[in-house]
Amino acid sequence: MSTLNLRQFSTRDAGFEREFARLLDRTPEADPKVEATVKEIIADIRARGDVALVEYTRRFDRRQLTSVAELEIPRQQLREAARALTKEQYDALANAAERIRAYHERQRTESWSYTEPDGTRLGQQVTPIERVGLYVPGGKAAYPSSVLMNAIPAKVAEVHELVMVVPAPAGELNPLVLAAAHLGGVERVFTIGGAQAVAALAYGTASVPRVDKIVGPGNVYVATAKRLVFGAVDIDMIAGPSEIVVLCDGRTDPEWIAMDLFSQAEHDEDAQSVLISLDAAYTAKVRAAIEKLLPGMERRDIIRTSLEARGALITVANLDEALALVNRIAPEHLELSLENPEDAAKRVRHAGAIFLGRYTAEAVGDYCAGPNHVLPTSGTARFSSPLGVYDFQKRSSIIQCSADGASSLGRTASVLSRGEGLTAHARSAEYRIKK
Amino acid sequence: MSTLNLRQFSTRDAGFEREFARLLDRTPEADPKVEATVKEIIADIRARGDVALVEYTRRFDRRQLTSVAELEIPRQQLREAARALTKEQYDALANAAERIRAYHERQRTESWSYTEPDGTRLGQQVTPIERVGLYVPGGKAAYPSSVLMNAIPAKVAEVHELVMVVPAPAGELNPLVLAAAHLGGVERVFTIGGAQAVAALAYGTASVPRVDKIVGPGNVYVATAKRLVFGAVDIDMIAGPSEIVVLCDGRTDPEWIAMDLFSQAEHDEDAQSVLISLDAAYTAKVRAAIEKLLPGMERRDIIRTSLEARGALITVANLDEALALVNRIAPEHLELSLENPEDAAKRVRHAGAIFLGRYTAEAVGDYCAGPNHVLPTSGTARFSSPLGVYDFQKRSSIIQCSADGASSLGRTASVLSRGEGLTAHARSAEYRIKK
Repeated sequence: MSTLNLRQFSTRDAGFEREFARLLDRTPEADPKVEATVKEIIADIRARGDVALVEYTRRFDRRQLTSVAELEIPRQQLREAARALTKEQYDALANAAERIRAYHERQRTESWSYTEPDGTRLGQQVTPIERVGLYVPGGKAAYPSSVLMNAIPAKVAEVHELVMVVPAPAGELNPLVLAAAHLGGVERVFTIGGAQAVAALAYGTASVPRVDKIVGPGNVYVATAKRLVFGAVDIDMIAGPSEIVVLCDGRTDPEWIAMDLFSQAEHDEDAQSVLISLDAAYTAKVRAAIEKLLPGMERRDIIRTSLEARGALITVANLDEALALVNRIAPEHLELSLENPEDAAKRVRHAGAIFLGRYTAEAVGDYCAGPNHVLPTSGTARFSSPLGVYDFQKRSSIIQCSADGASSLGRTASVLSRGEGLTAHARSAEYRIKK
Repeated sequence: MSTLNLRQFSTRDAGFEREFARLLDRTPEADPKVEATVKEIIADIRARGDVALVEYTRRFDRRQLTSVAELEIPRQQLREAARALTKEQYDALANAAERIRAYHERQRTESWSYTEPDGTRLGQQVTPIERVGLYVPGGKAAYPSSVLMNAIPAKVAEVHELVMVVPAPAGELNPLVLAAAHLGGVERVFTIGGAQAVAALAYGTASVPRVDKIVGPGNVYVATAKRLVFGAVDIDMIAGPSEIVVLCDGRTDPEWIAMDLFSQAEHDEDAQSVLISLDAAYTAKVRAAIEKLLPGMERRDIIRTSLEARGALITVANLDEALALVNRIAPEHLELSLENPEDAAKRVRHAGAIFLGRYTAEAVGDYCAGPNHVLPTSGTARFSSPLGVYDFQKRSSIIQCSADGASSLGRTASVLSRGEGLTAHARSAEYRIKK
């Protein structure tokens, strides 16, 4: 095996800022050709509905289809897929579902209001989004965990109907994905994918119901379609490549850390794995562990490409420096492999998920710890949050003035609206002022 | 005055669905010429920074400028603007600020966590967005209330730095806007506007700091720029024209209702005012009140255009029908001018803000009741919420496994990740399983 060309540098190096800036360059590229194709597909689905949907599915998914009815999977089939799993697989999936549900139950927002001394009541009424579309990639990259992570928060929010779409290339479906749909409480499943599935969910066809929000990961066509239908429906974030930063004090088994870095790198060639080490000697040990373990990994080619393209081993002088870099990266996943990680965690201002202590492998967060694995990537943790129940709930302001409240508030509103030249506002408020 | 050409129909009419569908057609049009111009401005600001910013500001705002330093207003000047107000204006603005703050204090989300029996701790750490840009339109449409409504939730969320931009066409600034910036706790103000201001906030220049999120209303250039920089920074919603639906049982003074409809219609020609009346005779009375009051309104031309283009008086058979229409419209503002509005409010599934009872004019919500006046428009209340403190906070998942927790979770993660073919994930989890 050839030498691993993995970047390694220290904050003491003269060229540190330049090296570090390269890691931060995560701007996604928009491809105008993809966008043109996707625009055409969306327009076609809007114009011709089910007929276009069947045509695209025949062509892109190589399906023999005579009618749109064949595109829906009955719920019975989901139940059967769950029953057909091995006991070990069923138990693992059910255990994950239960833990994810328990965690997300704590995120539910309730309606609230308060009444002022003059009898005026103010508050917010919280309601679920009514119908949500869940995109699930098909074929080889079919992830049952992703079904659970997207479906369960929606159901905890009491979304009325969850419509899943999953392409079935050449008719092939992953039984674990169907089983996860059953455990996640999905109401309807269509075997459609790509931009045509996103368009069908956003605008509805005779067979596919129009939804209010579309969530779930997908390839560049799916991501582009989601971006283009945004506004007509809500969407979750557009995910970039997955990332991990492991911050280690040098006292965790280097092989554990190497494997944690691999677990991110194996996702795809664009994934990013970064070690921030408080100790140069330890950095060298992790590098040695990486070189030792890499040849034995099933997905070694992907891991190698990812580490060489986007990985880094960074040595810093102290914890302050380390946390400053973490906050600049705003990573999707952050492992704090430290003796007392709690204080350091409180100083993390931007991260999708924080894994505290040597025992907390990022991988448990991906599957079954409970928190969501849909997390802000590419530095967007500066302004966004893990997917949660709050993404499937919405609020309406509640304002109920008493006669006294309307009178006193009316005086203030009158002055302010006249200051803005909006006199109908003023008069509307003034009608309710007591004479 | 010529006859008012205001649409009036009933759910009993044969053509009802066609008439109603016209009201729901609120699709915003994208203008490719505007987009091309805005893309150029953004690229130019990214490439040339302050130099380009000064050039555009000179040209578009007709300013005599020699340096970028002239674009920042010292905080002292904001304080002075607040002091220079009349006592009536200062008191009204301060009262509104205080009420908005009290209401939004109740929206703050706190960090939370729980510990499982085996010692594993799970939760979410809540942090503020660090730096937020607030766009404020200049010139005639300068709204101090909008400054308060955007700034106060950000400051309640403990945003570190709030950077306001407001164009000063020909050097002119609205002292009420500056005073509101003072009361709202804005840290820095730049007199820049348009797409160039949005680009400067999104990418930063030598003088204007880069922010993490941009909020606030603006014209089509500003809205387009916000849409284009989304991803590099977060943005609030892109607002469509303002809307009100008034649902009335026929026992509120028809002049009050006419004025409530005017107060929305006077915003601009595209605004939408709709009455849903439980009683045909009452519908006629409101129409008569509209015709009587319209000629006396300062903004009668805008009101007339808006009512004729987009307004409607709809008579329904009963409350069920009325609420079904409300939920289809998903209005920005909803007045429930009913005797016992609480039960009806609970049946509203989609609305930005609900104004309960005859005394609650929508206008008090615009200025001083406390709830935010930045609300989802164009039916987006199906999936979005009023602007709030939650828009300026974000969350990081917290996962801290005990040795026992890592061992049992590791077993589940191992099975599931092997099911997905991700063996580095599996091994990373398996390292932490107790032998």
